[in-house]
Amino acid sequence: MTTRADNPSSVGVVEPQTLHVDGPMPLDCGKQLTQFDLVYETYGTLNADATNAVLICHALSGNHHAAGYHRDDDTKPGWWDKCIGPGKMIDTNRFFVVSPANLGGYNGSTGPGSAHPDTGRHYGPDFPVVTVADWVRSQDILRAALGIEQWSAVIGGSLGGMQVMQWAIDFPNRLRHAVVIAAAPKLSAQNIAFNEIARQAIVTDPEFHGGRYYEHDVVPRRGLMLARMLGHITYLSDEAMRAKFGRDLRDGRISYGFDVEFQVESYLRYQGASFVDRFDANTYLLMTKALDYFDPAHAHGGDLAKAFAPVTARFMVISFTSDWRFAPARSREIVDALVDAGKQVSYAEVTSDLGHDDFLLTMPHYVNTLRAYLDRAAREIGA
Amino acid sequence: MTTRADNPSSVGVVEPQTLHVDGPMPLDCGKQLTQFDLVYETYGTLNADATNAVLICHALSGNHHAAGYHRDDDTKPGWWDKCIGPGKMIDTNRFFVVSPANLGGYNGSTGPGSAHPDTGRHYGPDFPVVTVADWVRSQDILRAALGIEQWSAVIGGSLGGMQVMQWAIDFPNRLRHAVVIAAAPKLSAQNIAFNEIARQAIVTDPEFHGGRYYEHDVVPRRGLMLARMLGHITYLSDEAMRAKFGRDLRDGRISYGFDVEFQVESYLRYQGASFVDRFDANTYLLMTKALDYFDPAHAHGGDLAKAFAPVTARFMVISFTSDWRFAPARSREIVDALVDAGKQVSYAEVTSDLGHDDFLLTMPHYVNTLRAYLDRAAREIGA
Repeated sequence: MTTRADNPSSVGVVEPQTLHVDGPMPLDCGKQLTQFDLVYETYGTLNADATNAVLICHALSGNHHAAGYHRDDDTKPGWWDKCIGPGKMIDTNRFFVVSPANLGGYNGSTGPGSAHPDTGRHYGPDFPVVTVADWVRSQDILRAALGIEQWSAVIGGSLGGMQVMQWAIDFPNRLRHAVVIAAAPKLSAQNIAFNEIARQAIVTDPEFHGGRYYEHDVVPRRGLMLARMLGHITYLSDEAMRAKFGRDLRDGRISYGFDVEFQVESYLRYQGASFVDRFDANTYLLMTKALDYFDPAHAHGGDLAKAFAPVTARFMVISFTSDWRFAPARSREIVDALVDAGKQVSYAEVTSDLGHDDFLLTMPHYVNTLRAYLDRAAREIGA
Repeated sequence: MTTRADNPSSVGVVEPQTLHVDGPMPLDCGKQLTQFDLVYETYGTLNADATNAVLICHALSGNHHAAGYHRDDDTKPGWWDKCIGPGKMIDTNRFFVVSPANLGGYNGSTGPGSAHPDTGRHYGPDFPVVTVADWVRSQDILRAALGIEQWSAVIGGSLGGMQVMQWAIDFPNRLRHAVVIAAAPKLSAQNIAFNEIARQAIVTDPEFHGGRYYEHDVVPRRGLMLARMLGHITYLSDEAMRAKFGRDLRDGRISYGFDVEFQVESYLRYQGASFVDRFDANTYLLMTKALDYFDPAHAHGGDLAKAFAPVTARFMVISFTSDWRFAPARSREIVDALVDAGKQVSYAEVTSDLGHDDFLLTMPHYVNTLRAYLDRAAREIGA
């Protein structure tokens, strides 16, 4: 029987692996984890001199399962399967792709749903606030454990792109290329406002129980659903919503009531409801806080060029014209600061329709640009 | 003692009045109200031939109290007090200004919190869905009751501007001027999406009790708070949020926690919490549905110019450059359709910073434009 995983452009069936780290992991918040797990997947083969490794950093709702399938009969592949695989934009015939789930996550890496080693109870609200820099430090431990001296590239979209910048700043010698897609050098007040409303939706849900909902055998469904619905407004452009739904009525006519009437309502409710079954509310809180706090220029009086001073990696920055969450102007701030700092940077502004989530897709201009960039990166290392 | 109400540019202390209407009021939804009250305020004096009356139509969170004070020691004047008063943009020395609260409201006009005449219980979720056209029909009953043949002008911002358009379409001979500020000919899918999330926040609040919270002596605070916070994101421009809050931390430093950290969070929580004390959740649901349904072109195959065919009023359309809820392009759709229909229309696009709520304020270009327009309207009637 031919399965989806047999598709020659798929990485096939993959099995998550776990790195267990003993010993303290200090965090920016001043607390530490006495031990932690990082779950990750790899696609492709590490070459003999370990130079062809690429790190994928995931965004708010992502995880380690970026490509392929977990079982032969899986219907849904990993979150970036369109772009990672044999012959794809991130070509696993040439690169050894490493995709970890971040600390604070919900399905493998240590997070609020994990057992606290001292008590055996869920961390819940006691899980420390983690930052982008904390994630990058933990990913560097994974790098060393895999025997990789230097990533050929670190690649990420959105919150993933922020991790890429932090890598280039904090571990300049550990990556040759930094690929920052649909990101921003810090959140705007409006971005923070959206996050704050999402958090309030979660923490005011009576089933949140101060973050200890695991022990009550419930989840704050309503709050998490609202948070996800709100997220979707920022992921899709106004134009995309117009093209996708217009003002179409689900049943063709106004019913003058409060059931679902417009297609867009139906879409949002579905997105919200299905998210609840696969995501953790405490993780959502942690991810949005990491977004809010990210601001590498802050320690340099707001001067992003100064923050980029240690960078040795070459940068590829990509933005999407219809992205209003992190609009092209935000990417140009990154590019301008890199130029001011005398760094090497390429920039592509991809004409797009769908908004922020375009980074997950495969518009030809996007794919061709990044493929060409990574082709040069591969040739440098003979891959 | 000099009070705020003694200020010569204030209309002073005003007393709401109530029009009680017996007899059925048929509604677009197919239901009817067997009787209803409209509460309203008036400012200025009706002239002898009753030609100087101006109708103010309020927006989502508005009511009849548009100007002046309810008591001498009131600290807060009506919602449009900056623009209505002796010598102000809408000059009560010349015009007799009528400001009703819409059906479905929460503090005087018949709404979900009113007693159902058949049962004596709160209407609650049984209050029928009302449309912009229903409101305009009820306002026309008020017009007749006040002995006014024709409004000199009907004026409104946002949802109020939609009522102005509906007036000009449905009762063309009843108004000379139509002033549409910061409005749109219909909501976009994105606008509907924001409304839907606000509604979901309210109806999923356990204290909503299917809309019968009055009988449980609670209000769906959390849901209404979230709805208002979300509204505020759309009322303020990204630039305004940046100017107002930037990424300023309330206590000057990151605390790595989930209490209020950024100023914008503090602002939103305050706005959300204070709204709960003065607004009704069922009214919020009704107002957002009226917004979603408004689409005068719908009955004309989407051709707005055809919808405007009956119009005889002259139009003044005003938009604000920083308004992203109803951007200038949406106002230009109105203007273009009026021009296509061969109607008289003036248009001003006011450079602004704050966003949608700019229509409540007094930027010189805005005030001068509308004042000049209304000056001509006043002179036509010798006021």
